[in-house]
Amino acid sequence: VSGSVRLHVVLLAGGSGTRFWPLSRTKRPKQFLPLAGPHSLLRSTWDRVRRLAPASRIWVVAPRTLASDVRRELPNLRRDRLIAEPSPRDTAPAIALACARIARRDPRAIAAFFPCDHLIGDLRAFGRAVAAAERAAERGALVCVGIAPDRPATGFGYLKVGAKPKAGVASPVLEFVEKPDPARARRFLRSGRYLWNGGMFVWRIDRFLAELARVAPEIRRQTAAVAGGSLAAWRRVPKISIDYAVMEKAANVAVVPLDAGWDDVGSWDAAARHASGAGGRGARVILGSDGSVVFGGERLVAIVDVPGVVVVDTKDALLIASRASSEKLKSVVEAVRAAGRADLL
Amino acid sequence: VSGSVRLHVVLLAGGSGTRFWPLSRTKRPKQFLPLAGPHSLLRSTWDRVRRLAPASRIWVVAPRTLASDVRRELPNLRRDRLIAEPSPRDTAPAIALACARIARRDPRAIAAFFPCDHLIGDLRAFGRAVAAAERAAERGALVCVGIAPDRPATGFGYLKVGAKPKAGVASPVLEFVEKPDPARARRFLRSGRYLWNGGMFVWRIDRFLAELARVAPEIRRQTAAVAGGSLAAWRRVPKISIDYAVMEKAANVAVVPLDAGWDDVGSWDAAARHASGAGGRGARVILGSDGSVVFGGERLVAIVDVPGVVVVDTKDALLIASRASSEKLKSVVEAVRAAGRADLL
Repeated sequence: VSGSVRLHVVLLAGGSGTRFWPLSRTKRPKQFLPLAGPHSLLRSTWDRVRRLAPASRIWVVAPRTLASDVRRELPNLRRDRLIAEPSPRDTAPAIALACARIARRDPRAIAAFFPCDHLIGDLRAFGRAVAAAERAAERGALVCVGIAPDRPATGFGYLKVGAKPKAGVASPVLEFVEKPDPARARRFLRSGRYLWNGGMFVWRIDRFLAELARVAPEIRRQTAAVAGGSLAAWRRVPKISIDYAVMEKAANVAVVPLDAGWDDVGSWDAAARHASGAGGRGARVILGSDGSVVFGGERLVAIVDVPGVVVVDTKDALLIASRASSEKLKSVVEAVRAAGRADLL
Repeated sequence: VSGSVRLHVVLLAGGSGTRFWPLSRTKRPKQFLPLAGPHSLLRSTWDRVRRLAPASRIWVVAPRTLASDVRRELPNLRRDRLIAEPSPRDTAPAIALACARIARRDPRAIAAFFPCDHLIGDLRAFGRAVAAAERAAERGALVCVGIAPDRPATGFGYLKVGAKPKAGVASPVLEFVEKPDPARARRFLRSGRYLWNGGMFVWRIDRFLAELARVAPEIRRQTAAVAGGSLAAWRRVPKISIDYAVMEKAANVAVVPLDAGWDDVGSWDAAARHASGAGGRGARVILGSDGSVVFGGERLVAIVDVPGVVVVDTKDALLIASRASSEKLKSVVEAVRAAGRADLL
């Protein structure tokens, strides 16, 4: 365990998982799927953050409906460390609620927040980046862990800094930039002064709650009520992301760079990059089909001269999609619903 | 019924169906599959030839192992009109055995032979072509029904004639040409003097048996023994096609052209041409995937931006193949066998 005794870790395990249909379903979203290895994404994330803090200081925010699934997947999660959201409200309420809950135990704690759909190859570099973020947080910054980009990705938000970021050093964030178009993304990459916003944050709870009260007082008020036991207050919490609600408006926001073989598992295409050619337990016969990957399924799957596709084989639904079209899955899910088969979602 | 009282019809229902794996299996070859309409290919062929002869003069040659399947599929087939082959021996033995059996009932009969994997759009034109073939057969010719080509296909053998063939007129066949390369196929198409050899034949039984005795005496001898009750003789029958064994060597071979919207269902690509966009009973969501077709399956199948593929969804095996790669299915079947999953063939 490398974190300080003040460091609490919070895993953000919400999300509907539409993008991983048909393997993910309403009742089994992506964090419960072994999309990039033998374990579920949730379990892999738990194993990773156990290097940062003991189980007594690891928290999980998850939808109430999935609480028993989380406990099954994380047998070492402490009973009172699971924060159940009555309904999905995006990241700002989830993070605010976690901070309110942690503050009741340790108002001077530092908290680090991690989504559950990341892959990180170099765990030592990850630990060093979190330690640097923790040091900056001690001094009062709201710290993003920003990913050193290795391609002009258009699917992430970017964090602008004043000079080329250096490992272990926190720099002030000059601007939050939403997902750019390809030309802009190429400029960002060339400039060396942009990092991807991966949704990982580290801060002192007291500092965050003070900023929250200033820039999003309604969220502060209602989540404090929920933390105090009034679950009904959750209904009055606006649904909004942490970036929009807090980070873009807060003072003293910094970023620490992470260069650790990071990827997020945000689409079938990303999962395919880490699936090493085959998922599922069934036999595979893949001829003339470079880059095609099969997920799920016990059946034999044969692919002949169909390169670059992802095949997702489940008991009652089968998806065959161009890897480049991962982003279209929302329309598929809508079409399935329109066809009267919401039972398959 | 349009044929003469002497016309017997023989359906050739052998064939292993490797090309339609995984819907076709050793125990359920393609003739039993509804590949191009609501009924099996065998049943569709039966329905078509019922226009030519009454059930009492329709025969089926099929592997012994499939006899009960044939009877189930063709409830009106007479008990003693099913000719069971002890093992597959290609078309020459099947046809010779059928002729020997028919000769024992009616030595002056005319017999017409049809494979069970053809589609014919214009049934009147089909009836007229068979009638013309029957007239030429009466006069002693061994008559092929040759298909008027509409494209430079490389997957068929060709029949060369002296002048442009005319509907209803039998012309002498000058040459049997094996599957040509594309350039040659284009020359054949331009010349107008070539027809596809579709494996449909009409002749007088006595004429055929005399030719058979002359050009393939061993086949004549052994199949006569089988027809006489000595099933063991089948083992001594060589495995050979009717074209090689007889047609290329026989005297007085003629061809009658057929221009009737003919196609054969020889590959998934061909089946897809006739499947009108969807087979199977499951729901389909097909986005940005022109020319992609699903066969089989009760599951929902979604295809996103993967054009021109055939998807064959069965309980224990799934095939996703480029339609242009239909011919590669043999290697898939071999790979499945090599993977120790012959149980799936």
